[in-house]
Amino acid sequence: MISKNEAKYIQSLFQKKQRDILGVFVAEGVKLANELIQSRIAIDKIYATEDWEPEIPAPLPIQRVSDVELAKISGLQTPNKVLVIAKKPSYAFTGIPKKSCSLALDGIQDPGNLGTLIRIADWFGITTIIASEDTADCFNPKVVQATMGSIARVEIVYTNISKALANTNVPSFGALLEGKDMHAYAPVKEGVLVIGNESKGIRKEVIEQIDHAIHIPRRGQAESLNAAVAAGILIAHLYR
Amino acid sequence: MISKNEAKYIQSLFQKKQRDILGVFVAEGVKLANELIQSRIAIDKIYATEDWEPEIPAPLPIQRVSDVELAKISGLQTPNKVLVIAKKPSYAFTGIPKKSCSLALDGIQDPGNLGTLIRIADWFGITTIIASEDTADCFNPKVVQATMGSIARVEIVYTNISKALANTNVPSFGALLEGKDMHAYAPVKEGVLVIGNESKGIRKEVIEQIDHAIHIPRRGQAESLNAAVAAGILIAHLYR
Repeated sequence: MISKNEAKYIQSLFQKKQRDILGVFVAEGVKLANELIQSRIAIDKIYATEDWEPEIPAPLPIQRVSDVELAKISGLQTPNKVLVIAKKPSYAFTGIPKKSCSLALDGIQDPGNLGTLIRIADWFGITTIIASEDTADCFNPKVVQATMGSIARVEIVYTNISKALANTNVPSFGALLEGKDMHAYAPVKEGVLVIGNESKGIRKEVIEQIDHAIHIPRRGQAESLNAAVAAGILIAHLYR
Repeated sequence: MISKNEAKYIQSLFQKKQRDILGVFVAEGVKLANELIQSRIAIDKIYATEDWEPEIPAPLPIQRVSDVELAKISGLQTPNKVLVIAKKPSYAFTGIPKKSCSLALDGIQDPGNLGTLIRIADWFGITTIIASEDTADCFNPKVVQATMGSIARVEIVYTNISKALANTNVPSFGALLEGKDMHAYAPVKEGVLVIGNESKGIRKEVIEQIDHAIHIPRRGQAESLNAAVAAGILIAHLYR
């Protein structure tokens, strides 16, 4: 049985303010639960139906719930056996990573886009994402679900990007429509790629700190590419 | 005033079956409306609030509606001034395009992914998408919105992909996790890139018809990339 107060508590975690105060976040589904259990992230509590077992048996704070109870606390249209409450890791900003490739997000708003960007970073071995303070919260349940588990492996640090770029020698690249063709650049081993807001792009004070404005050559007529797609293409080219 | 019957008719267009019977589809918002008006697609009717005017003045079947009326017929959370009913173009399959680059989709299910794929095609000048019969309907309003207007410029043809590949000499490439590193391939001027279903990938009988299995090198731990992101990366590399 889930008490009324408990259900209320879980529902409150769909609000950023409550996640910040309580220091926890919600992740759902079999795949995400297993990824989190096997990661460095601490698990607070697991609500699971009787037919769910973790991939790796471990002493875990599991509370068994019925399908109806799970549906009540779930944020998904189709709840998937398990809901995890995990402790939000907090990463301090210690400068843009040197001798490696990182990603900086300047005001990404769409939770699906942010989740996909975290998943892309994880695919390409990018372990740090620097995000402007007005970027969507990476512990928003919609973001967490869209990462498909990559939230357990990529560090997202919120900071002032313009200042961060001003204080580094790491070469910076900005995805800008008026930039140079990306094919003019050879792969780099050290760099930070800046991706801007879905409609407004990279803000002026951040652009001023960028070393190389680059763009993906367009041969058709679409006005722009989705932010996550553009990031994927630039990362695959630049950080190969 | 929108009559009850008219509202019912518009709502029915959110169902594929009705779109197929009636031969029309719904597109919403200022940008999409302008793109459609300027395209080859025929406009059946436009419902718009008083403050909307087309970018290019033209004789158009505009019916003025109030904000409340627009909200009633809209499929968007935040209706954006105009809703267009347009005639569904129907393209016959005449073989995989020769001497150019095309995209083939094998069972893409998510409307957002399909819309983003159409937008990617449009960016890179790919004018034809071949889609398996079980791919999501490109005139689903969610797909139309996600194309950001590219639906007006890219032809999507539904057919049996496996047969289509069997009957062509155009070199085919398939996005497969077990494929060869894409960097082993030089850019091509003629080709068809096959992207599979979000969870199941490309089906067996289609794989059997593919000339080159290629993949995006992974350096991290994510199990997969989003289908649209993978398509974008492969297209940018292969069709540059």
